[in-house]
Amino acid sequence: MPGLRGISSQISDPSSAAPDSKLIDDLVYANRILADQGVFDAFGHVSVRHDKNLNRFLLSRNLAPALVTARDILTHDLDGDPLDAGDRKPYLERFIHAAVYRARADVKAVVHSHSPSLIPFGVTGIPLRPVYHMSAFLGGGTSLFEIRHEAGMTDMLIRDHKLADALAKSLGEDAVVLMRGHGATVVGNSIPQVVYRAIYTEMNARLQAQAAALGTITFLSVEEATKAAAVNDGQVLRPWELWKARIGKID
Amino acid sequence: MPGLRGISSQISDPSSAAPDSKLIDDLVYANRILADQGVFDAFGHVSVRHDKNLNRFLLSRNLAPALVTARDILTHDLDGDPLDAGDRKPYLERFIHAAVYRARADVKAVVHSHSPSLIPFGVTGIPLRPVYHMSAFLGGGTSLFEIRHEAGMTDMLIRDHKLADALAKSLGEDAVVLMRGHGATVVGNSIPQVVYRAIYTEMNARLQAQAAALGTITFLSVEEATKAAAVNDGQVLRPWELWKARIGKID
Amino acid sequence: MPGLRGISSQISDPSSAAPDSKLIDDLVYANRILADQGVFDAFGHVSVRHDKNLNRFLLSRNLAPALVTARDILTHDLDGDPLDAGDRKPYLERFIHAAVYRARADVKAVVHSHSPSLIPFGVTGIPLRPVYHMSAFLGGGTSLFEIRHEAGMTDMLIRDHKLADALAKSLGEDAVVLMRGHGATVVGNSIPQVVYRAIYTEMNARLQAQAAALGTITFLSVEEATKAAAVNDGQVLRPWELWKARIGKID
Amino acid sequence: MPGLRGISSQISDPSSAAPDSKLIDDLVYANRILADQGVFDAFGHVSVRHDKNLNRFLLSRNLAPALVTARDILTHDLDGDPLDAGDRKPYLERFIHAAVYRARADVKAVVHSHSPSLIPFGVTGIPLRPVYHMSAFLGGGTSLFEIRHEAGMTDMLIRDHKLADALAKSLGEDAVVLMRGHGATVVGNSIPQVVYRAIYTEMNARLQAQAAALGTITFLSVEEATKAAAVNDGQVLRPWELWKARIGKID
Repeated sequence: MPGLRGISSQISDPSSAAPDSKLIDDLVYANRILADQGVFDAFGHVSVRHDKNLNRFLLSRNLAPALVTARDILTHDLDGDPLDAGDRKPYLERFIHAAVYRARADVKAVVHSHSPSLIPFGVTGIPLRPVYHMSAFLGGGTSLFEIRHEAGMTDMLIRDHKLADALAKSLGEDAVVLMRGHGATVVGNSIPQVVYRAIYTEMNARLQAQAAALGTITFLSVEEATKAAAVNDGQVLRPWELWKARIGKID
Repeated sequence: MPGLRGISSQISDPSSAAPDSKLIDDLVYANRILADQGVFDAFGHVSVRHDKNLNRFLLSRNLAPALVTARDILTHDLDGDPLDAGDRKPYLERFIHAAVYRARADVKAVVHSHSPSLIPFGVTGIPLRPVYHMSAFLGGGTSLFEIRHEAGMTDMLIRDHKLADALAKSLGEDAVVLMRGHGATVVGNSIPQVVYRAIYTEMNARLQAQAAALGTITFLSVEEATKAAAVNDGQVLRPWELWKARIGKID
Repeated sequence: MPGLRGISSQISDPSSAAPDSKLIDDLVYANRILADQGVFDAFGHVSVRHDKNLNRFLLSRNLAPALVTARDILTHDLDGDPLDAGDRKPYLERFIHAAVYRARADVKAVVHSHSPSLIPFGVTGIPLRPVYHMSAFLGGGTSLFEIRHEAGMTDMLIRDHKLADALAKSLGEDAVVLMRGHGATVVGNSIPQVVYRAIYTEMNARLQAQAAALGTITFLSVEEATKAAAVNDGQVLRPWELWKARIGKID
Repeated sequence: MPGLRGISSQISDPSSAAPDSKLIDDLVYANRILADQGVFDAFGHVSVRHDKNLNRFLLSRNLAPALVTARDILTHDLDGDPLDAGDRKPYLERFIHAAVYRARADVKAVVHSHSPSLIPFGVTGIPLRPVYHMSAFLGGGTSLFEIRHEAGMTDMLIRDHKLADALAKSLGEDAVVLMRGHGATVVGNSIPQVVYRAIYTEMNARLQAQAAALGTITFLSVEEATKAAAVNDGQVLRPWELWKARIGKID
């Protein structure tokens, strides 16, 4: 009975299980929220690891994030290949997501953006460090990914496994890595956490630049940052609910 | 007749009298206005002293301020304990409000925020001073609360009476105290006044930073500040009505 | 026949003629536009000289400019006294308008504001000069009114004729005068022109501060400014119509 | 049969063929988008070369860009003369567009603006250079047009062929030329590309100024810029669709 076999293989093979529809809704919200909050413009992308298969992740087709709907979400494997794209075009830089999920079992969600206030830090080589408890996840400061060290003069994009693995190595165990002349990649253990981190990375950059113009900055120490980050992780749903409320109902 | 005794004790015991419903409406407006004007993001809180019991204050349950309604307002005693929370979670940092109401009989309303333009001043140790008459309440300049002096390396939060009392001591008789790596606490003699002060503290910080980049600043002298602040106190309902009009009808 | 005498005196006495209702509408739009464009917050005021009586000017009662309607406009004489206020409160600083209309026959409209980007220039004593043709009306640069030179340590407000006359003297034949620790006063030959000037004074201040941080500025020369200002005066209705369209229909 | 002759001459004479109505819609969108994105205020203009006659271009009548509709689009010849204006007033500076279309066969669309963040660069003589891949079209950096070198002390406007030709010469083969004390002119091979370039020129200026305040900037090298610009050209419809969606349906 092929019909039954089909069902049974669907059950036994986690690779064919559909993700929780709530996870997809949250991913759509993440796209819209990051655009609404100024982290994304027409570019940037956010993904989440599949809840039923750790070797898959979910990421929109090539589209401006503010326009993403549930119907645009594609399942990718850890090579970055979309499995259900049909004739829909994937993002050029999906390799970033794949490499981070391969390198970091703790990471469940990834944001890549050209978040404006981060660019001046990337091009001057000044690390982001936490100016207040809200951005405590920045810990001891961000690393910088310099694509020239990997591949010389390029189009700046992370368009293959080699570059993506080098970026994941720059990220190390951190929450954020800056990319010179390009933007940043931010990781988290859930969609609400990675969205929180992406938004407060942008805010920290803005405030750190203002503070640097005023005088010598007392940053959070690593101990303060570690303690404050632990508290914030328990508060991450408060802003998430507010940011969702600003978006309203999604279709 | 226990029924009558109940009524009589309700009348004679001010601790059980309900606050004026207009006071609660104003507190809801204050939450929404401070979010609308950029003093609050998903975090920050504003309280008011109970109009019928000076040993109580009103403060929302743990919620993003933009989402607060009258049904979310909890009554707290001066230990910061909520009296009618049921299963609703209070704010972690309610101790700030309790300590200020204990220390300052003149204070009727308190705002604690991470108002963005204040952060660079807190982390560089530069006091806010009034650049114009609108922020004359800053007087001779703000003090800075450095939590390390009280408790070493912490999670930066005011989570007990000891820290809250130290913060209230830093505030002294001022309207505003900056908190390094955290934000600020602002006090006033009414909800409209504390909202006015919180908004113009943010504005003063923005303008003071711009002025510092241009040249040497002539601040308001203490005498000018004292005189101008007295005049502004008589004008505080003008912006309050405008800010309320931007919010519209609350539910 | 007293009835006929009444009619005849109304006709012959220009002081009792009602202003053109279009002028009042334009004044209401000016209030709303300057709030919408960020020149006004809850404070600031704009007036226009009466079209039928050069010794009168029109100015709202004491109200946030964004909330002004035709019913709030009061007629003032050149002493700054409102003639038809009834129990409505006039602005404290109406003397500014009166003094400028007395001193400058060419002036038909006056804006007084705390336009944010101007404050840093006032407190550092750096004159505004035109960075581009749009703000050519700034000519050779702004004067600074220092209230301490007139009256020592005050509440910063222009609350009498003496201070207002001193301010008008600082203004001289210019379009704009900065007021240290307070704001600015801007004048024009019509409502659309004074609104244009107030908006582009704010913009010039913002751009001049940015340019000063980058390097040495080549300002418009006085000859360039004079020529460009003449052209702009012929274009002033283009932005006026746009700014009105943003406000929509007024009641 | 004059009727038939009329038809036949319409067909054979490309100068009388109407432009594609989609091109006109796109030009209306370009006007509205550039106002919505802060490149235009009440001033600035965008044109497109006629799709059926390379010696014509389409440009609105003298109007604030946010208010432009299809009915306001005029056809101009390469002398800058409007052919179908009737009693409608053309833009004073239409000569800019005419000169660029004469000088650059590759150019299909032109934006002239007073884009705010560009002004500080023009007046300090600091070239814009690409801080990230999004503005890679800036290549090796912008030239500066100094009108004084051409015509001494003027009203700053490009009001004749001589000035417009000099401006086109400053532009050379670049995408952007800065104009001291005035603004900039940006060119592209399509409406979506020129709109993309105008928006990211503004963004680059903002970020370059911030970066210059922080430290020494590593700009994209010319090779990086060339490669990245080629990739972006293939992505230009993604932001275009988003920016159109923000405007909604045009009338």
